[in-house]
Amino acid sequence: MTTLYEDAHKIIQSAIGAALPDTAVKKALSDIVPLLNPEGKLVLIAAGKAAWQMAKAAADQLGERIDCGAVVTKYGHVKGEIPGIECFEAGHPVPDENSFRGTAAALELVKGLTEKDAVIFLVSGGGSALFEKPLVPEEELESITNQLLACGAEITEINTIRKRISAVKGGRFAQLCSPAHVYSIILSDIIGDPLDMIASGPAYPDSSTCEQAAAIIGKYELTIQPETAALLSIETPKHLTNVTTMVTGSVKQLCKAAAETAVALGYEPHILTAELACQAREAGNFLGTIGKFHAEDGRKQAWIAGGETVVKLTGNGKGGRNQELALAAAVPIAGLDNVAVFSVGSDGTDGPTDAAGGYADGKTAAAILENTGRTIDEILADNDAYNGLKASGGLIITGPTGTNVNDVAVVLIDKAL
Amino acid sequence: MTTLYEDAHKIIQSAIGAALPDTAVKKALSDIVPLLNPEGKLVLIAAGKAAWQMAKAAADQLGERIDCGAVVTKYGHVKGEIPGIECFEAGHPVPDENSFRGTAAALELVKGLTEKDAVIFLVSGGGSALFEKPLVPEEELESITNQLLACGAEITEINTIRKRISAVKGGRFAQLCSPAHVYSIILSDIIGDPLDMIASGPAYPDSSTCEQAAAIIGKYELTIQPETAALLSIETPKHLTNVTTMVTGSVKQLCKAAAETAVALGYEPHILTAELACQAREAGNFLGTIGKFHAEDGRKQAWIAGGETVVKLTGNGKGGRNQELALAAAVPIAGLDNVAVFSVGSDGTDGPTDAAGGYADGKTAAAILENTGRTIDEILADNDAYNGLKASGGLIITGPTGTNVNDVAVVLIDKAL
Repeated sequence: MTTLYEDAHKIIQSAIGAALPDTAVKKALSDIVPLLNPEGKLVLIAAGKAAWQMAKAAADQLGERIDCGAVVTKYGHVKGEIPGIECFEAGHPVPDENSFRGTAAALELVKGLTEKDAVIFLVSGGGSALFEKPLVPEEELESITNQLLACGAEITEINTIRKRISAVKGGRFAQLCSPAHVYSIILSDIIGDPLDMIASGPAYPDSSTCEQAAAIIGKYELTIQPETAALLSIETPKHLTNVTTMVTGSVKQLCKAAAETAVALGYEPHILTAELACQAREAGNFLGTIGKFHAEDGRKQAWIAGGETVVKLTGNGKGGRNQELALAAAVPIAGLDNVAVFSVGSDGTDGPTDAAGGYADGKTAAAILENTGRTIDEILADNDAYNGLKASGGLIITGPTGTNVNDVAVVLIDKAL
Repeated sequence: MTTLYEDAHKIIQSAIGAALPDTAVKKALSDIVPLLNPEGKLVLIAAGKAAWQMAKAAADQLGERIDCGAVVTKYGHVKGEIPGIECFEAGHPVPDENSFRGTAAALELVKGLTEKDAVIFLVSGGGSALFEKPLVPEEELESITNQLLACGAEITEINTIRKRISAVKGGRFAQLCSPAHVYSIILSDIIGDPLDMIASGPAYPDSSTCEQAAAIIGKYELTIQPETAALLSIETPKHLTNVTTMVTGSVKQLCKAAAETAVALGYEPHILTAELACQAREAGNFLGTIGKFHAEDGRKQAWIAGGETVVKLTGNGKGGRNQELALAAAVPIAGLDNVAVFSVGSDGTDGPTDAAGGYADGKTAAAILENTGRTIDEILADNDAYNGLKASGGLIITGPTGTNVNDVAVVLIDKAL
């Protein structure tokens, strides 16, 4: 295989490494530790799919400095004991009794804190379901959720309602910690890092208003109990003076780490975006034409795009968005000996496959045609990128990585040979 | 309107200006004139949709230095007399008797030239139909063409056959001019400037072979006359020692001119590609996310992509690929006050509309919603970008420009306000 192939794997490894919860948490903590009052209590609360890993990393670094703590994560995600920390496994994506039990335990720990004390709050994707204390009875919560989903309400509308019927969402958790200071360390899995959306923003000021909530109820003609109506008229916090927020793992860092490794390997880096959201095969074609255009520049270049593309289903094959992107890029770069395009999901899984993504270069199209008798257009029409890339040796397999901060796609251009 | 809007129009004007046949031909001729033998004859041959304009520019510059010449262009495209040059209007996209008559007149002029003499050959899109002397009877040509189209043969396969049954295609015109030198000035309307494809390459070595021609006949089981079979076994020229080729108008120059004007206006330029070919709305979304990501950089930037996107028809509205690209870009940049995306066809027409393209900025989405009650997604689903952009003041109208070198799309980012 070529140097481009080796360079691709080095870039993937370092980008995912930088986005691992452990690395991300340790990096953020090194900034926070000097700010802590040595005389105060330190409480660790972690919620989300990566909560256990984040809490473990924090506990390893802070040791006995932590007085107590609670972790609420998804079933099967607690990997062992963490001294001094109580770990809960709970329902996701639908919250269950264990979500409420774990959250209640966490709230108990932050009760009665003083100005000297601090809460380290580790947030990751899935926190909306896992970290929850509803202010309405279960049947009412279920009824509202079902109505909102059935009427086609947008996610921002759903959140505007949900934040008001929760004791912890929309900045309210941070209020409950007051007057202690909350250091919120966020591993972001939502493009653009909308901090009031990740885990429904328990420690972030809410920008939605009571008027908007009322308008949504009216717009979709939702049926709610009088108690719920009363809750919707209570405003969420708009300013939180006791919170410091740090986004530490995110697709931006994935891109940045990819760029840094590319530079170390001699490539001139260009980060295009960290909010890629278009169709996978079209993004791949676009990136491939960037590679083709610059192939004759005589300079080593890396063009990087982070985000999460979407797959348009037109067939019944096997694949994922990263594999489809890479395969589509193989068309414009076919025949070129100094261009490669690869795309990888930071969680190590891409669609219902064992691959994390795909790699394509100038030989990919010919190799696939020779080994399968199919053209790339035919394979894309069948959404069968997995089998296409398998035939060209272009599957990227990492196994589960333990992080989830979207995807990164890279065009690598070597000097013309 | 904002400065971004004004800058967009300056960039569009200069990019199209640089790609005009007149500008392009004059630039190329200034390199050629010193090479001409003052004692030799100078013959001017122009073929294609821009043939008249190119010939007029050359005649204006070279004056009496031209001994004789012929122009073959599309009906309605001769705009007046050019002294010493015979002008023909003919059929396009299907060649007719006037195509053959004009081509015959041109061939008459290059007959019997010597080594001292030179031919200036001005080539533009449409030349395949306009510049033609078939070597087979009309019915046979028609039969072969129809069979090739019906069987779904690729354009390269069609050309492999067509070049062999033509007296001028595939480098044969240049052979007929020999020993005179041919200066071929090409205004390219095909992405990637494949010189043997533009006008079927009358003055460019042909890379296809007799074996390939025979394989195509076999593959599609085409019915041909014995005389045609004999022609297919005659090889096209693989090397032409009497030709100098200059690509002078092309989408690369469109991008380069856009970049130069952007620099003059204070933007840091990034040419992404000159071979954009993906779906218009997906390219727009991608470009919009580039704008959104860099909006906070604090640097003026211009990200430029040339090429020709495709529109996926999902509705019955009015629009074109450039308008659809710009409208789709309005979604990711909505609300930003320092980002704009625009896209324009260099010929001044975009789809079946009077607009050349579209312009979108952070206010576009809100303006359209307010003025039409429709979201951008709804408008895109109806392929109605024209009416969407009309409502936001985002239609770019230039009128016909007289050139046709594909499209250019640009993301402009101002310093954050």
